[in-house]
Amino acid sequence: MKVITIVSGGMDSAVLATHLAERKYEQHLLSFNYGQRHVKELEYAFYLSAKLACQYDVVDLTSLKRLLAGSALTDNIVVPDGHYTDESMKATIVPNRNAIMLSIAYAVAVAENASYVAYGAHAGDHAIYPDCRPSFVERFQAMEHVAAGSTILLKTPFLYLTKADIVKEGHRLGVDFAATWSCYKGGEIHCGTCGTCVERREAFHLAGVEDPTTYQVVEDVHS
Amino acid sequence: MKVITIVSGGMDSAVLATHLAERKYEQHLLSFNYGQRHVKELEYAFYLSAKLACQYDVVDLTSLKRLLAGSALTDNIVVPDGHYTDESMKATIVPNRNAIMLSIAYAVAVAENASYVAYGAHAGDHAIYPDCRPSFVERFQAMEHVAAGSTILLKTPFLYLTKADIVKEGHRLGVDFAATWSCYKGGEIHCGTCGTCVERREAFHLAGVEDPTTYQVVEDVHS
Repeated sequence: MKVITIVSGGMDSAVLATHLAERKYEQHLLSFNYGQRHVKELEYAFYLSAKLACQYDVVDLTSLKRLLAGSALTDNIVVPDGHYTDESMKATIVPNRNAIMLSIAYAVAVAENASYVAYGAHAGDHAIYPDCRPSFVERFQAMEHVAAGSTILLKTPFLYLTKADIVKEGHRLGVDFAATWSCYKGGEIHCGTCGTCVERREAFHLAGVEDPTTYQVVEDVHS
Repeated sequence: MKVITIVSGGMDSAVLATHLAERKYEQHLLSFNYGQRHVKELEYAFYLSAKLACQYDVVDLTSLKRLLAGSALTDNIVVPDGHYTDESMKATIVPNRNAIMLSIAYAVAVAENASYVAYGAHAGDHAIYPDCRPSFVERFQAMEHVAAGSTILLKTPFLYLTKADIVKEGHRLGVDFAATWSCYKGGEIHCGTCGTCVERREAFHLAGVEDPTTYQVVEDVHS
């Protein structure tokens, strides 16, 4: 059974692809370059594909960057520090991003006769990202059932897991977390203070798994 | 009220944008370059935007071309001749195309605080293209209601009209049909024999409107 798996180079997608590899799915990994500030995450996605010996492609959506002004992920706006669920993190939302990525992944799935499209939506994202919620997953699948005229299903094994649960699953699978990238600032090393860095550190802490990441700033996020 | 209107350079989108302009909507026209053989249609879309004095952008999706092998629209497969509704025309389907284009248009709509996304789906396309059917329109809108967390609506004024009805509406609006492109072969002039050319000629004939198009082959399609 073939799966088109959307991967970003972050922890969630590394665990997702490794989880699916363990279940012997044939995977085609797909990343998206939408002009994100942290485009270096794609190097980690490439590394993941090499490690899992999967087909890998990057879809170039950089022509959208100018059109989708207003997101801290793609513009010269300062990436906010603080907790991921803070109001300020809403600035990092690229509008409608998952619908765009999933639509393209479905097109590839049709072209390649794949049975599934997978992405790493999880419970920790539900609050901020509507396109990671179960209701979105249901409706997207219902839409594609008509659009692609097919029975390609959306695979979201982490939909009801927390990020800490994902760390635990990755630990069990032996995922090389040091070779994943989360930081939205896209510097030389993880900043340790932006929303995704705080979330990453917290997930390791809650999972009780050693965090192999080198952060620029490492004051205790749990104080 | 602002509308993001998807235009191809063909008849349907020219009539759609002119129809919306008559109703005084502010429009941002959006075209997609997915490596289509008939990419020259985009010149006609640009002309339309100039004529209506609308903002116009082309989204570059050419990186999808290699991934979506198998469609006569983008590959070096021979474009089939014959009637549009023939089985052979299914070869011209780019998988999931409308879901991809609409998802991107919704992202632009969110970024620009637009109220609507419009596209030229019509009854003549229902048979072949599932992503032009009312059930698709309903489900796409339901999905976006969650994804974009918004009340942006999908505007499809021609959903229950035939292509001949659209020609009549364009005629009433004074649309310059000579400055629209349909032919999937993308040659110097319309071939007159591919599915879309046959459909175009038939629509003018059924509407009782003079067809200003120069075709390479003009044997009677109605014999």
